[in-house]
Amino acid sequence: MAKMPKTLQTIIIEQVEPELDGGRYPIKRIAGETLEVTADIFKEGHDTINAILRYKISGEKIWNETPMSHVDNDRWAGSFLLSDNTRYIYTVGGYVRSYETWRIELEKKHAAHLDVSSELLEGHAQVKHARTRAKGSDKATLTTWLDQWRQARDQESLMAIALDPQLRTLMDQHEHRAVWSLYDRELAVTVDREQARYSAWYEIFPRSEGTIEGQGGTFKDCEARLPAIRDMGFNVLYLAPIHPIGETNRKGRNNSLTAGQGEPGSPWAIGSQHGGHDAIEPALGTLEEFDAFQQAVRNHGMELAIDFAINATPDHPYVTQYPTWFKRRPDGTIKFAENPPKKYEDIYAFDFYSLAWQGIWQEMKRVLLFWINHGVKIFRVDNPHTKPVMFWEWLIEEIQQDHPDVIFLAEAFTKPKMMRVLAKAGFTQSYTYFTWRNSPQEITEYFTELTQSKMQDYFRPNLFPNTPDILPDILQQGGRPAFKFRFVLAATLSPAYGIYNSYELCENNAVPGTEEYHNSEKYEIRHWDWDRPRNIRDYITRINHIRRDNPALHSFTNLQFHQTNNTHILFYSKITTDKQNMLLFVVNMDPYAMQEARLTIPLKELGIQETAPYQLHELIQDYRHDMTGREYIIRLDPNHEPATIFVVHS
Amino acid sequence: MAKMPKTLQTIIIEQVEPELDGGRYPIKRIAGETLEVTADIFKEGHDTINAILRYKISGEKIWNETPMSHVDNDRWAGSFLLSDNTRYIYTVGGYVRSYETWRIELEKKHAAHLDVSSELLEGHAQVKHARTRAKGSDKATLTTWLDQWRQARDQESLMAIALDPQLRTLMDQHEHRAVWSLYDRELAVTVDREQARYSAWYEIFPRSEGTIEGQGGTFKDCEARLPAIRDMGFNVLYLAPIHPIGETNRKGRNNSLTAGQGEPGSPWAIGSQHGGHDAIEPALGTLEEFDAFQQAVRNHGMELAIDFAINATPDHPYVTQYPTWFKRRPDGTIKFAENPPKKYEDIYAFDFYSLAWQGIWQEMKRVLLFWINHGVKIFRVDNPHTKPVMFWEWLIEEIQQDHPDVIFLAEAFTKPKMMRVLAKAGFTQSYTYFTWRNSPQEITEYFTELTQSKMQDYFRPNLFPNTPDILPDILQQGGRPAFKFRFVLAATLSPAYGIYNSYELCENNAVPGTEEYHNSEKYEIRHWDWDRPRNIRDYITRINHIRRDNPALHSFTNLQFHQTNNTHILFYSKITTDKQNMLLFVVNMDPYAMQEARLTIPLKELGIQETAPYQLHELIQDYRHDMTGREYIIRLDPNHEPATIFVVHS
Repeated sequence: MAKMPKTLQTIIIEQVEPELDGGRYPIKRIAGETLEVTADIFKEGHDTINAILRYKISGEKIWNETPMSHVDNDRWAGSFLLSDNTRYIYTVGGYVRSYETWRIELEKKHAAHLDVSSELLEGHAQVKHARTRAKGSDKATLTTWLDQWRQARDQESLMAIALDPQLRTLMDQHEHRAVWSLYDRELAVTVDREQARYSAWYEIFPRSEGTIEGQGGTFKDCEARLPAIRDMGFNVLYLAPIHPIGETNRKGRNNSLTAGQGEPGSPWAIGSQHGGHDAIEPALGTLEEFDAFQQAVRNHGMELAIDFAINATPDHPYVTQYPTWFKRRPDGTIKFAENPPKKYEDIYAFDFYSLAWQGIWQEMKRVLLFWINHGVKIFRVDNPHTKPVMFWEWLIEEIQQDHPDVIFLAEAFTKPKMMRVLAKAGFTQSYTYFTWRNSPQEITEYFTELTQSKMQDYFRPNLFPNTPDILPDILQQGGRPAFKFRFVLAATLSPAYGIYNSYELCENNAVPGTEEYHNSEKYEIRHWDWDRPRNIRDYITRINHIRRDNPALHSFTNLQFHQTNNTHILFYSKITTDKQNMLLFVVNMDPYAMQEARLTIPLKELGIQETAPYQLHELIQDYRHDMTGREYIIRLDPNHEPATIFVVHS
Repeated sequence: MAKMPKTLQTIIIEQVEPELDGGRYPIKRIAGETLEVTADIFKEGHDTINAILRYKISGEKIWNETPMSHVDNDRWAGSFLLSDNTRYIYTVGGYVRSYETWRIELEKKHAAHLDVSSELLEGHAQVKHARTRAKGSDKATLTTWLDQWRQARDQESLMAIALDPQLRTLMDQHEHRAVWSLYDRELAVTVDREQARYSAWYEIFPRSEGTIEGQGGTFKDCEARLPAIRDMGFNVLYLAPIHPIGETNRKGRNNSLTAGQGEPGSPWAIGSQHGGHDAIEPALGTLEEFDAFQQAVRNHGMELAIDFAINATPDHPYVTQYPTWFKRRPDGTIKFAENPPKKYEDIYAFDFYSLAWQGIWQEMKRVLLFWINHGVKIFRVDNPHTKPVMFWEWLIEEIQQDHPDVIFLAEAFTKPKMMRVLAKAGFTQSYTYFTWRNSPQEITEYFTELTQSKMQDYFRPNLFPNTPDILPDILQQGGRPAFKFRFVLAATLSPAYGIYNSYELCENNAVPGTEEYHNSEKYEIRHWDWDRPRNIRDYITRINHIRRDNPALHSFTNLQFHQTNNTHILFYSKITTDKQNMLLFVVNMDPYAMQEARLTIPLKELGIQETAPYQLHELIQDYRHDMTGREYIIRLDPNHEPATIFVVHS
């Protein structure tokens, strides 16, 4: 039989927004933001209702409340400040405003010249009840009202007392919440720190920071390079794995199956006699030297991100310590990682379906806490899409409960739904398909999805035009012009982006027919000449300064695309809500030829009258155009300047 | 701390469709339909997975299963037959196909010329395990395979055995469902009988069926009219309330506050010394006569619908039996129903917030069961939007659990979100805004929402062009042409519609400035002359025959609108999925003037080649046009024929 409810929570509360998958996953926001919550809230009959937005920090007992207001058509809206970097819970409640319901009916009846003496008695009873709930001066005031009421001689004087606005206010304050009804779900919002939204990453292999040819770099060498990285305008320094590298089946130069004498192996082959995930590769330095380096990064106004890759070489301490964590072949030996026919002979994959899976989960948590205790608050997670999503959901919530400032970047380049569910499950930021979106149309479609769909509530793109694994075709072929405009796109489409070092050198030497770097740092020690001719360090520095100085670039969902008459030209804008900072971007995505386009300046969005003068101030080259009207013709020569950033002064 | 799960249900199952408000409410379907279910289903890593659609009749223990198949981009689809008129529960599960995963990897490795001897041993172990699960001839076959395997001398023969399609099929059948994962919600679908979707209602006041002037009609009189109603093509006969009418404050003719001697009162003023909701107004007959009439209706191929109005006159037995069910004034008297400043002096409203609310719920259930036991399976529920929605949700589920064939029509003309939530809460059919949608644009917008939005899953419109409470302006002003085209719209836009009697007489005599009928049957006994000049009985009969003969008119969501170049002309189509029945409708919604429109026949939707000949057969007037191409010019004179229905023969 259908269950009869215990209480009459009859106010309908539904279509609560934002809400992700019926409340299954938290949405994401940044500390300091205001969360706007809307809902359909209504009740049968003619009662006047109020709606309340409830919120609290997860784990707290007491709800905070803020009133919602009616927008239209039974839609209500309210908001609260997400002041802290933590997880908040929110929900919505509603109740009948008994006194207001009564007052409105009284006025209607009185206006229709009906006898309201019985209604006045009902109101009097409500005021008496309210007095029992009131305290102090409110109680005294209500007592005075009740006295006046008793002394009133006729219906008109009673009406005047009943409808007094001051009494109404007092009655609202001491409202008995009749028919109190609560939304049947509690929704969560993960509130991250600013760094989660706005950051510029720079990725290095510490061992390539050495200054003596043929000799690997150390944390000390890395420290020497911090001023240069900071001066380019980056604020997250991301290190390829820093743990001891295995000896067994160590990979050689250019991913060869055997390493020659002295070859360093892939840093993703974690674990040796020197330790595993909580140890430092001795060639880089000691744990104490790591700590000092971490502090030095902070002293340079930047923050360290390290790599979190769950795999182990045959030499990893786990292999003997936790033999059940790895999948075995029928002959009892452990299986190497593989993605047939590809094989990774230098590492074992963890068996997340072993009976000991809970041990793996707990140990991974311990490893993260180890590095958190060493000051690391940002983890770039390697291949999360090959581990159970529920593992990440547990791990990230578990870590962020005590360390809400920890940021996780999902390095998943995989199918769209897996990309999305990893973000829903908790990853703070995500890698994207940006790396391969090469036409204005592709960019427009992809970024419209990212900024306009539900994804805007949980998926924070971190745009990388290159990674150690991906030197995309557009950079291989397009050369320096492509490096320039892909950088502008990454740095301005999203407030979070990053490059893998050598990008500033326009390094585009690939293994033919692949996206792999030739002589990849993954397998050997490199020595980069940071002053190499035709580098774009100054260009990067300039764009990062523009990012810093223009608050419109600190948001993502303010991205708007505009039409042009040239399919090679991407035209977009970013405008702050208060219109104090308005930017227009025009990018020629053809690295080979000059392109010209007729732009229609979006005057309405810029709040500029059709006939009013305004100025376009180009920020890369610093020139100014005085303008009236919508039409602007632009010519972009990739070999000269493929991108233009205008700040609009009106 | 975040909770560590107990089992590894790591297959992601989300975005299940259809699903209403995160599974909060059931969707609706009709017995005999197939329910298509789709979902995003995927897993980390590279395992091959299978997805399963599970379903059962609500309350049953054992799930039925049917395989789903992969559509694209991790979207899976499956379906099952909703054979019974009952409530089904469905959900989705997924698992890893261990053998298939192994087989695919084996083939890849073999193709890459890798040694697969270890892999072959793994496959052998899987077959051995499968044999423990298999029975009978399957077990024997697997044993034979294992023998062959043992006898095989080299890797190539082993490969041939391992990849044998017959073994693959057997292994699929005896699959051990590794990593079995279940969607975290169970979804419900209310499966109604055909009548819930396709029905033509005819509403009468039984007391007006008398044949002797000045004397009220009885069930006997009603019975005499059944052949005429049936012959017009109606299949639901809906009676205004048939219960004893109160004496106290009885309403007089045209809603006057006092009834003269012999005036019958409003049938919605339920309850007298003769009984209440489970009694029959003595003037109409006895309960036995009602039973006989109910049977007579069935014998005429129709079904009875009665009114369910929850209110009571001061003379209702409930008033003394359940004094706490009614709201009292400060002086202890019971409050009359009101919607200030409107008052309903002849009835009390129930107080659904009284402490005895559960008693009201149970008694209302008893009343419904009483009439169900007297053969009534359709209830038109009066003003459901003034009672708690959760009451209806409970009541309808409670009734339909034992009587799934019972149909509830929600008579709510109120704000859109309340209309929707009543349907979600369980009402089988709903009244609509159709009654006031008077332009092709309004009809197009409203019916696009009804057929294309989520509403299609739960909101079944029953279109009434008039009701005893609503004689809309378009009928008052537009006269006979309006009566004709509003009828065509009601009867063809939706498979469920109804009229209140006198519509066929084009009765449009209203209380000036209102939508109330002058001399409304609500307050007096009427005697209608069914042969009144200029009646449209034959027209109604014709349209109902067209409905019966054309299956395209038995569906709702197949409604498609098409553009015309005249804002008075509505052009729409209904086509069966198999394209065996294709109808085009052209309606001039201007009752005052001839309108001409250039139509573009939707050849593509009709499956007709651009140059192919086809025929438009007009069904109301029975003429035929031989056609080629898209263009058709139509002229509709409201005084002659405001609507055209073409069946397309190609």
